[in-house]
Amino acid sequence: MDKQSPIRAWQLPDGIDELLPDAAAQVEELRRSLLDCASRWGYRLVMPPMVEFTDSLLVGVGEDLDLLTFKVPDQVTGRMLGLRADMTPQVARMDAHSLHGDQVNRLCYAGSTLHTRSGSLAASRSPLQLGAELYGAQGLSADIEVIALMLSMLDVAGVEIGSALTLDLGHGDIFKHVLAASGAKDAGIESEIFDALQRKSRPDLERLLEQLPVGSRSGLRALMDMHGDLDVLDRAEAELARTAPQIRTSLEELRALSSALQARYPDVSLYVDLAELRGYRYHTGVVFAAYTQGLGEALARGGRYDNVGKVYGRSRPATGFATDLRLLASQLRTQHSSSDAIAAPDLEDAALQDAVRSLRNAGETVIVEFDGDTDSRCSREMTKIDGQWQPQARQTSLVGEGK
Amino acid sequence: MDKQSPIRAWQLPDGIDELLPDAAAQVEELRRSLLDCASRWGYRLVMPPMVEFTDSLLVGVGEDLDLLTFKVPDQVTGRMLGLRADMTPQVARMDAHSLHGDQVNRLCYAGSTLHTRSGSLAASRSPLQLGAELYGAQGLSADIEVIALMLSMLDVAGVEIGSALTLDLGHGDIFKHVLAASGAKDAGIESEIFDALQRKSRPDLERLLEQLPVGSRSGLRALMDMHGDLDVLDRAEAELARTAPQIRTSLEELRALSSALQARYPDVSLYVDLAELRGYRYHTGVVFAAYTQGLGEALARGGRYDNVGKVYGRSRPATGFATDLRLLASQLRTQHSSSDAIAAPDLEDAALQDAVRSLRNAGETVIVEFDGDTDSRCSREMTKIDGQWQPQARQTSLVGEGK
Repeated sequence: MDKQSPIRAWQLPDGIDELLPDAAAQVEELRRSLLDCASRWGYRLVMPPMVEFTDSLLVGVGEDLDLLTFKVPDQVTGRMLGLRADMTPQVARMDAHSLHGDQVNRLCYAGSTLHTRSGSLAASRSPLQLGAELYGAQGLSADIEVIALMLSMLDVAGVEIGSALTLDLGHGDIFKHVLAASGAKDAGIESEIFDALQRKSRPDLERLLEQLPVGSRSGLRALMDMHGDLDVLDRAEAELARTAPQIRTSLEELRALSSALQARYPDVSLYVDLAELRGYRYHTGVVFAAYTQGLGEALARGGRYDNVGKVYGRSRPATGFATDLRLLASQLRTQHSSSDAIAAPDLEDAALQDAVRSLRNAGETVIVEFDGDTDSRCSREMTKIDGQWQPQARQTSLVGEGK
Repeated sequence: MDKQSPIRAWQLPDGIDELLPDAAAQVEELRRSLLDCASRWGYRLVMPPMVEFTDSLLVGVGEDLDLLTFKVPDQVTGRMLGLRADMTPQVARMDAHSLHGDQVNRLCYAGSTLHTRSGSLAASRSPLQLGAELYGAQGLSADIEVIALMLSMLDVAGVEIGSALTLDLGHGDIFKHVLAASGAKDAGIESEIFDALQRKSRPDLERLLEQLPVGSRSGLRALMDMHGDLDVLDRAEAELARTAPQIRTSLEELRALSSALQARYPDVSLYVDLAELRGYRYHTGVVFAAYTQGLGEALARGGRYDNVGKVYGRSRPATGFATDLRLLASQLRTQHSSSDAIAAPDLEDAALQDAVRSLRNAGETVIVEFDGDTDSRCSREMTKIDGQWQPQARQTSLVGEGK
């Protein structure tokens, strides 16, 4: 190992960070209140493993998630292990394989994930993913429930559910059907077209379309512009449904979903984007994301993914969403750490220890101050009055001296 | 990828497990109550990263932790990343590098760790480590505080702090000094002797001692038997202090510690083992572990490790302990999941949705039952009475039908 300066030795990898006390307290509080919120909606917590064999972790979830996943050999079996980059497929497999019965199943989870690279310069490579998933329910009611739960969690997190919030809606099947109708698969340029559409790069798309028959180009060309208000749904029907008639069902779903959402959340803006599929790796139906003004990344996103559990013997309807606790916490107003703790002297005194134990059992924070140390969080101190130890206001001159 | 049966595809690696709802709820409850306990003692939560560069993660922590650590190349920098196998050294570096000042600093943490292999057949390779660390305090008061906090946490976890609990005490320096006095370092057999002592294998130790001068063998031979009641401390003084006089300070520390612990916890059994150092990878002073009858592994363990932060420019006194939440939760009595939730019908009815929202805000669990589904957790259901939605006891015939 090279000799290194202390600073260099402590450098953290790009996109990896540590949370110091104030930030950690905020993330922890958020974690608890969001999981409690999910619990009040009937979602039960599960804890998927940190690693799995890659041939179970990555089957059926798409190439982009595979590329995001760190892999390392298992010394015990020689097989390859993958570190979870996304917990949603893990939870889907827990529903499909480890939990039994055909009834509706509501699950939630929270934990660290790890990515080989970040989506953007600022993005974390270790999101603290928290999410909720609903299995066994096919209808639009299930999609509405998870969107409503997502908005309820954002509300709990202090995000105003009003006009500054935009709900993006899309549909995994529309892109799929328009692409299929174009013949791009035969030309072997599916993923290039996907990339060009995600970058909304018209020149790149035009170059790719030259490889397709002239008559098959209009659908993909039109799809690139299919974003905006709800009238996008009518435009898509007019311009795309002739060559890809299967999208009519998807458009009908989006219409029903948006009117249900407008009725429930009249202030929230709806935005439709039928070409945007970045971040929806394994989704099949309705997809959605919540954006707030001034933040480029989604606060939370999700959608329907009915086929992930299939390889485990049970193909179950599935819909859900996830958020990054760290990102969400960064949107909160900074809270001041409290300073109403009680200082206790460092004495082997049974009566003092009893008094301290009682105070802690009653929920008070009591901090022992060793010789010469003063803790700025303490506004009170244990004082012996008439032979009894009790907390008293600390003399002002002492407060804040230590730290 | 090979074709696989669903079962095979879902097999988890040895020592890696998933937590289904009942177990996850228990671990989560324990996690919260232990962190809240630490907070009442003034310990602030931090969240160290899941991965770091190996040259900061593994510096100064010993070869055995290195071997336990999964390593994987960072695609961004080409440098090697290590997955945390133990969070204590990470927290020590956060104290030494990221937090400033020379005052006493109390930190706690909870998170997943990952091991390349498990210590025993039954042991987890992904402990959910929760711990508390105290920095900047040199004296025995600090060691007593962290042991007291450990016992308080075990108490919160439902472990009886009585005669079924044994507190093992040891000292990192005693082994070091006896080993140094034996000349084993010159013979290059330090780690072999360490292993033989940990396995308490007398034949192996004797074979190794043959490589040392006859006059230097008695100390290590005696050390193997230095476990038992507190009178071990007197035996060690008599048999070891002549050749390794530096151990007198360590023995004095153990005497002072054990009398303070006996005064505070008269029912808890104390056991001294001066040769046992397994699990104390980087410890330098007093080490301790809590055992309960019938469980081979320690419920929690810790000790003093004053030099971990040194390479980061600040050598700070440090003492603390950690536990595995999963192991601790397995010791708890199984709790029954509650079944007092309220079922709500799946209707687009604004009055119903308002009533459901109010109930959830008041802390009730309300579960929407989609068409044909019944949730066995619901003993009540939303009913419209005189135009008002309210929870009513569910008819008995329905309860338990669904699941």
